[in-house]
Amino acid sequence: MGRWEPNGRGRLAQAALDLYVERGFDQTTVAEIAERAGLTERTFFRHFADKREVLFDGSSLLQQSMVDAVAAAPASASPMEAAAAALEPMGELFDQRRDFARRRHSVISVNPELKERELIKLATLTEAIAATLHERGVAEPAASLAAQATIGVFHVTFQRWVAPGETRELGELMRESLAELKAVVR
Amino acid sequence: MGRWEPNGRGRLAQAALDLYVERGFDQTTVAEIAERAGLTERTFFRHFADKREVLFDGSSLLQQSMVDAVAAAPASASPMEAAAAALEPMGELFDQRRDFARRRHSVISVNPELKERELIKLATLTEAIAATLHERGVAEPAASLAAQATIGVFHVTFQRWVAPGETRELGELMRESLAELKAVVR
Repeated sequence: MGRWEPNGRGRLAQAALDLYVERGFDQTTVAEIAERAGLTERTFFRHFADKREVLFDGSSLLQQSMVDAVAAAPASASPMEAAAAALEPMGELFDQRRDFARRRHSVISVNPELKERELIKLATLTEAIAATLHERGVAEPAASLAAQATIGVFHVTFQRWVAPGETRELGELMRESLAELKAVVR
Repeated sequence: MGRWEPNGRGRLAQAALDLYVERGFDQTTVAEIAERAGLTERTFFRHFADKREVLFDGSSLLQQSMVDAVAAAPASASPMEAAAAALEPMGELFDQRRDFARRRHSVISVNPELKERELIKLATLTEAIAATLHERGVAEPAASLAAQATIGVFHVTFQRWVAPGETRELGELMRESLAELKAVVR
């Protein structure tokens, strides 16, 4: 088998998620994922550190999108407006991948180890947004509070978006949750 | 050595924290903790599941205090007022233990495994507050957003309270952070 496989990464991710949904995360081996994708274990490990990282493959891209959006907010934006700018690219990132996100969520939500990994991801995103707000000159505790509020909205809204039967797009739900947060905190 | 030891639990917790600060968490064994406390390993395991749980011993009490306060908020309280009632008993719980809290924080903040455990604790507290708000008739997403905002304030404020040189009491800082959150989100 050659070193280069067309879309090996995508095929491996799809095969992994299929198996996690069918058998459960803990019951799936890397050998089985590679076999399902028609690739080798070696190819798997060229793309992913372990079978858990398949589910968190987009974390860096997500963080970069959020940070870029916060940094690009107008100079006149309030701390919360700048923080909440992190939510604007979310629809573009996720709306085409709702089925994948739903299946991923169904795997993570029943596995404590994966839920922990998801919490770490959210904490890392919060810190990244707070750091970007600091660079914009926002002081503490405003920066951390705005970052926490933003990731709180992201987390709650993402769960709404993947819920069975929900058909509205992520961007619309984000805006609604943000308005609801303002109403709740007022 | 008899089965009953005066304040064995407290002596073990103190010895454990002393050793974690002196040597680091990973470099400390249960045998060393027991020896420092003048007790046996068997006594340690009668009180704690493992050396990590010494640092999270108060989690159930903390959660119960928060949930009780949310449940006891006046019927007229808004969702956020009810959620934020969870913060009111915090001063009473923690202000006498600031030195312990500072040393505990110094141990946790340099250890990824312990930071994860702390994140899980915060997520569990968030879910418990949201569940108590549901019992009060608060709908989604307001309940989850109010719970997230409250634990966000708790987390940010606790870090301020244990910061070197900070002398104000936890209750005062909680009220200040809550006001700051309202100002930020508005």
